[in-house]
Amino acid sequence: MRVGFVGLGVMGAPMATHLLRAGYQVHVYNRTPHKAQPLLDQGAHQAQDLQSLAAHCDRIFLCVRGSDDVTDLLRKLTTTAKPGTLFIDHSTISPPVAEALHHSLTEQGFRFLDAPITGGSMGAQSGTLTIFCGGKREVFEEAEVAMHAYGKRVELVGGPGAGQRMKMANQIAVAGALLGLCESLSFAQKAGLDLTQTREMLAGGAAGSWAFDHYGPKILNQDWRPGFSIANQVKDLHYCEEAAKAIDATIPMTLLARELLQSMIDQGRGEETTAALFEELLRRSG
Amino acid sequence: MRVGFVGLGVMGAPMATHLLRAGYQVHVYNRTPHKAQPLLDQGAHQAQDLQSLAAHCDRIFLCVRGSDDVTDLLRKLTTTAKPGTLFIDHSTISPPVAEALHHSLTEQGFRFLDAPITGGSMGAQSGTLTIFCGGKREVFEEAEVAMHAYGKRVELVGGPGAGQRMKMANQIAVAGALLGLCESLSFAQKAGLDLTQTREMLAGGAAGSWAFDHYGPKILNQDWRPGFSIANQVKDLHYCEEAAKAIDATIPMTLLARELLQSMIDQGRGEETTAALFEELLRRSG
Repeated sequence: MRVGFVGLGVMGAPMATHLLRAGYQVHVYNRTPHKAQPLLDQGAHQAQDLQSLAAHCDRIFLCVRGSDDVTDLLRKLTTTAKPGTLFIDHSTISPPVAEALHHSLTEQGFRFLDAPITGGSMGAQSGTLTIFCGGKREVFEEAEVAMHAYGKRVELVGGPGAGQRMKMANQIAVAGALLGLCESLSFAQKAGLDLTQTREMLAGGAAGSWAFDHYGPKILNQDWRPGFSIANQVKDLHYCEEAAKAIDATIPMTLLARELLQSMIDQGRGEETTAALFEELLRRSG
Repeated sequence: MRVGFVGLGVMGAPMATHLLRAGYQVHVYNRTPHKAQPLLDQGAHQAQDLQSLAAHCDRIFLCVRGSDDVTDLLRKLTTTAKPGTLFIDHSTISPPVAEALHHSLTEQGFRFLDAPITGGSMGAQSGTLTIFCGGKREVFEEAEVAMHAYGKRVELVGGPGAGQRMKMANQIAVAGALLGLCESLSFAQKAGLDLTQTREMLAGGAAGSWAFDHYGPKILNQDWRPGFSIANQVKDLHYCEEAAKAIDATIPMTLLARELLQSMIDQGRGEETTAALFEELLRRSG
């Protein structure tokens, strides 16, 4: 089967590689052409443009940055895509936008699955991503096998947009654990406690979290390289707000996390890891 | 060695039992006398009042509710305590109050260790508590062996009040993980997602935490029995605020958590488990 893959970034490139290894004939397109080269070396086909990629593939995977990119790509791809083409969007986008895309693509005779991922670049490389899928069951079942090339836990979580809503629930919990970690360790620093001892004593108990285990060491080492960048987190938390408004949900902690992280973008720190929020809390402590 | 134990609640009773088993001659006193009976059955000595307990013991452990209780107990105990008596306070109290107690007890010729605990009633029963100790190193070293009767991780984390400050750092991180869990699952419920699937898919990834593992099931079962009650959490978060003010630290998420939980106390839900915050967020969603 000929599949297309658009968006060969830190997540998309290893995912497309897994599809190649699973025996799929993969056509790739990336806005930055040289990013496609490692895939081409492993047997992928280079599409000249989005229109020719769409004309040649039965299924097209997207893994790009946000709502606007996905909307724009789909507008271009659908000008030449065959009737019934199945689009699988692994990007994290706004849930109401995902719902709208489901409706417009279905009206045009295409099929769509919102399928945001979690597990990070390590998960993409090792093929152990978690994939939250929203859409029709028969569409999910058709796409499921291919997604298992890079996904360990691949589940249908509801109808159109439900995958993105589940991703937002994930990002909300991530924001809480991040705030807990950064506020705890910045308080500890101000209190004159040893940060290494603090992290070790707290991580194993009721305060423990993935954030404590994975971001705690970054804070101790003052290593602010992403990882997951502040800019990406703020984008996702903006989508959380859009989704919460659409369903009348109250998310005060998430809005607080967004405000704190946004102020770091305003200070030119958007490309640092989210764990750098530790420094923003210290800065505000004066 | 004769030791005293004051406060035979859900934490203190099993801790005192571990001291008995470790061979200490334990004198007990509890405001509610019948709570002492199981200890007496195992060989503890009943003190008639605080003054006689203090007169007979070289070390006195406290495990009561908060700053006011500890201050009041110490005022009474010190009227008859022998010079050099070592007081070990396992209660969670306000860090600035703990510092003041260190100073006044030292001036009176006594010794003091602030030693708040974490690990819950299960940890107290199994003798696997984590104990954050603040005070002089020689005082810590004298008390350390006895605390290992019920503590797995027993560490000196700094000078006077440092144990309480570390406990506050712990409670701050706990509040973040709790908010992350409750805001995530209340959003998921409003979004029409299956809560069991949501918890399972999120708990194993970057959103994961002790709270997800231990409070998530309570939310799924709508089981609001404590555990750690909202009233106790609010008390601790109030101490976090006092401590943060004293050291000029910024803790906006912690203050948000306190406001949300305080409003549940105002609704008469103070004795429920903190995981019931899930319902408060749903209520505010309308």
